[in-house]
Amino acid sequence: MLDPEIAGRVIAAVNERFDEQLAWTAELVRRPSLRTGEAGAQDLIEEALTGAGLDIDRWAIDSPELRAHQGYGPTTVDPAALENVVGTWHPPVERGRSLILNGHVDVVPTGPEEYWSRSPWDASVVDGWLYGRGSADMKAGIGANLFALTALRTAELRPTGRIHVQSVVEEECTGNGSLAALLRGYTADACVIPEPEDDKLVRANVGVLWFDVTVRGVPAHLRVMDTGQNAIDAAYTVMNDLRGLEAEWNRRKDRHRYFEDTEHPINFNFGVINGGDWPSSVPAQCTFTVRAAFYPGISAADAWAEIQETLAKSAARFDLPDAVVATPSGFFAEGYVLEEGSDAEAVLARSHERVFGSELESFTTPGYLDGRVFTLYGNMPCLVYGPVSEAIHGIDERVEVESIRRITTAIALFTAEWCGVEPQP
Amino acid sequence: MLDPEIAGRVIAAVNERFDEQLAWTAELVRRPSLRTGEAGAQDLIEEALTGAGLDIDRWAIDSPELRAHQGYGPTTVDPAALENVVGTWHPPVERGRSLILNGHVDVVPTGPEEYWSRSPWDASVVDGWLYGRGSADMKAGIGANLFALTALRTAELRPTGRIHVQSVVEEECTGNGSLAALLRGYTADACVIPEPEDDKLVRANVGVLWFDVTVRGVPAHLRVMDTGQNAIDAAYTVMNDLRGLEAEWNRRKDRHRYFEDTEHPINFNFGVINGGDWPSSVPAQCTFTVRAAFYPGISAADAWAEIQETLAKSAARFDLPDAVVATPSGFFAEGYVLEEGSDAEAVLARSHERVFGSELESFTTPGYLDGRVFTLYGNMPCLVYGPVSEAIHGIDERVEVESIRRITTAIALFTAEWCGVEPQP
Repeated sequence: MLDPEIAGRVIAAVNERFDEQLAWTAELVRRPSLRTGEAGAQDLIEEALTGAGLDIDRWAIDSPELRAHQGYGPTTVDPAALENVVGTWHPPVERGRSLILNGHVDVVPTGPEEYWSRSPWDASVVDGWLYGRGSADMKAGIGANLFALTALRTAELRPTGRIHVQSVVEEECTGNGSLAALLRGYTADACVIPEPEDDKLVRANVGVLWFDVTVRGVPAHLRVMDTGQNAIDAAYTVMNDLRGLEAEWNRRKDRHRYFEDTEHPINFNFGVINGGDWPSSVPAQCTFTVRAAFYPGISAADAWAEIQETLAKSAARFDLPDAVVATPSGFFAEGYVLEEGSDAEAVLARSHERVFGSELESFTTPGYLDGRVFTLYGNMPCLVYGPVSEAIHGIDERVEVESIRRITTAIALFTAEWCGVEPQP
Repeated sequence: MLDPEIAGRVIAAVNERFDEQLAWTAELVRRPSLRTGEAGAQDLIEEALTGAGLDIDRWAIDSPELRAHQGYGPTTVDPAALENVVGTWHPPVERGRSLILNGHVDVVPTGPEEYWSRSPWDASVVDGWLYGRGSADMKAGIGANLFALTALRTAELRPTGRIHVQSVVEEECTGNGSLAALLRGYTADACVIPEPEDDKLVRANVGVLWFDVTVRGVPAHLRVMDTGQNAIDAAYTVMNDLRGLEAEWNRRKDRHRYFEDTEHPINFNFGVINGGDWPSSVPAQCTFTVRAAFYPGISAADAWAEIQETLAKSAARFDLPDAVVATPSGFFAEGYVLEEGSDAEAVLARSHERVFGSELESFTTPGYLDGRVFTLYGNMPCLVYGPVSEAIHGIDERVEVESIRRITTAIALFTAEWCGVEPQP
């Protein structure tokens, strides 16, 4: 249990530095870090971690070990061009428990900017919300990790356990960033990831597959449309078959602990589609990309096999060789469950209650989380817990400012108790 | 009636020059003339027309008159960069009837080249067929026009009527090329277009509209997929509504002369689709392009109004402003009927019988033809009549070599009789 006097100093320190934290987070939002374009944002983070007295490790994530790992996501970009940044606090004498504070720096595309109320990159604060692409998912979390440590220094405390502050890439598409950090040797007694989780703790989440489906057609002139086979129409048929599998998987939710009460735990999304090359030709090809979820405890390979079975049945509808060809193109990632009863969760629960005055709730989320890397392959309890948000991956994404303050406070208190602190000499 | 001795000389002359014609046509196929890339093919045609002793007119098709014309197709490319070529034969004394020999030089995209048995641009002759994109549609026809005239010279004859040999652009997308030629002042007593029509004459064809439909969605993270609205899924709902209208229009075929016996006269094609920008985001936007047909006698504006009505009903399914926005993006073109009983058709029928030994058949085609320009706006009988083909707009497009020979012969005989001929001095 954390000494109440120390807790009070930590809380005061978070508040003292909070304007600075918010400004820094806004600056981070202003550096667009779309996939492969993360360098400018990583520069800012590296600079801040250096300023916080941490030892910097910045490296391109590619490696043969990464590519050979069962949790690796086949990637459509060059991983040699993508850099993780990790800042490490080494206590003079390591007496406390170690900790990873993880966050991802990559953000998803904005969608049509004209739908936004303001630029996705201007990071305005309006009515208590910080706006912008990545504001909630999850630059506020990266700021929370950084300023939780800053608060300890401000409170003239230093952790007695080793701490790695990670800013990883590829969380939105493959999960290869966190996996690369693990494979580089970063492990600890616990891990915190302040994803935007509405002030709650993630108990369980789904695995995710990304794959491209190319549906072939038979091009023809429209005057003989019946001799052709429209690949765009055919793609729709294949999508319907996948919707059938999605429904079947949702019907199975009773078999999966923590998912029984989730209304629609398994979501298949058709996220991108491109087909045809001429309005007056029956299109020869249509490709769409699917994001499919599956329950924890099922291997990605098994989920993929069941999807391929469905697609083979789709293909049999068409009298064409290679009528439907599917290729993994990103996440090949299993879901995980945070087992109840860990010390880490108990410490977080205490920290949360001190800040929020209410019990820490846990919940099941049907979205991908890098937590699977630490849980499944690093054998660490991973606490995914972060601020209140609206419209992540949507239009006018935003994060609640006061929620950032409270989450940062809770993480600072958690760190102080988990790692232990001693006076800054 | 053409003098049998003269007819015999013309037939012999076509045969004499046919190897040259085939080689020239293959060279034309080897010059890809995709939309906006027609210049190289037009160069070859201009050179050939010059060599045939014609006066050349080459001009960019854009003009205020063109853009203001009711048959103009709203274009997504700059018409100022697109050039028609017309070669004109002026007889020393104009005593015979005048003639337009029209063909379009633009070709549609190839689709995935890996589906082709050989390059779409190598113009091989295999088993009596000339292969390649545009071989049938309609570079063989351009060659037929040119070498029909060449045959007359070879037979030491010259036409006594004015002849315009037109190589136009934009037939595959807007019809603006032929329309621009008409507006430049080219008219005649009849017009021939050797489109690949299986040795038959087109009696009636459909009007065609091209339009882009942008369907809006509500982007969201997949963990809250139910708060989003997938624009790709929504696009398919809209497509289904359009399929409903297509079925309705097909049910009305009994009301339209020449279409009663066509099995499926009205084809709607979804030719291009693009949507979404991230597999794990519910897509905010999906755009598809439609080619829709409608019966002759219906104005493009009326057809468009009925389509817009259907799309408005689609839009009402979605609780979003601007849920479905449609914009004309090419053909805004009405269909036409070649009235029976014209002199031009009688002359063609005689020419055809002399070559084929069988009656000229006419038929109804559910495809767009530039014939509408000459018929509706130029008040000329327009004979769309050309060789046997396979897979136009498809994979391994090809045209039958002997059919080219016969069609060229029929056009040469038609020209001799229609315009009249006199000995070359």
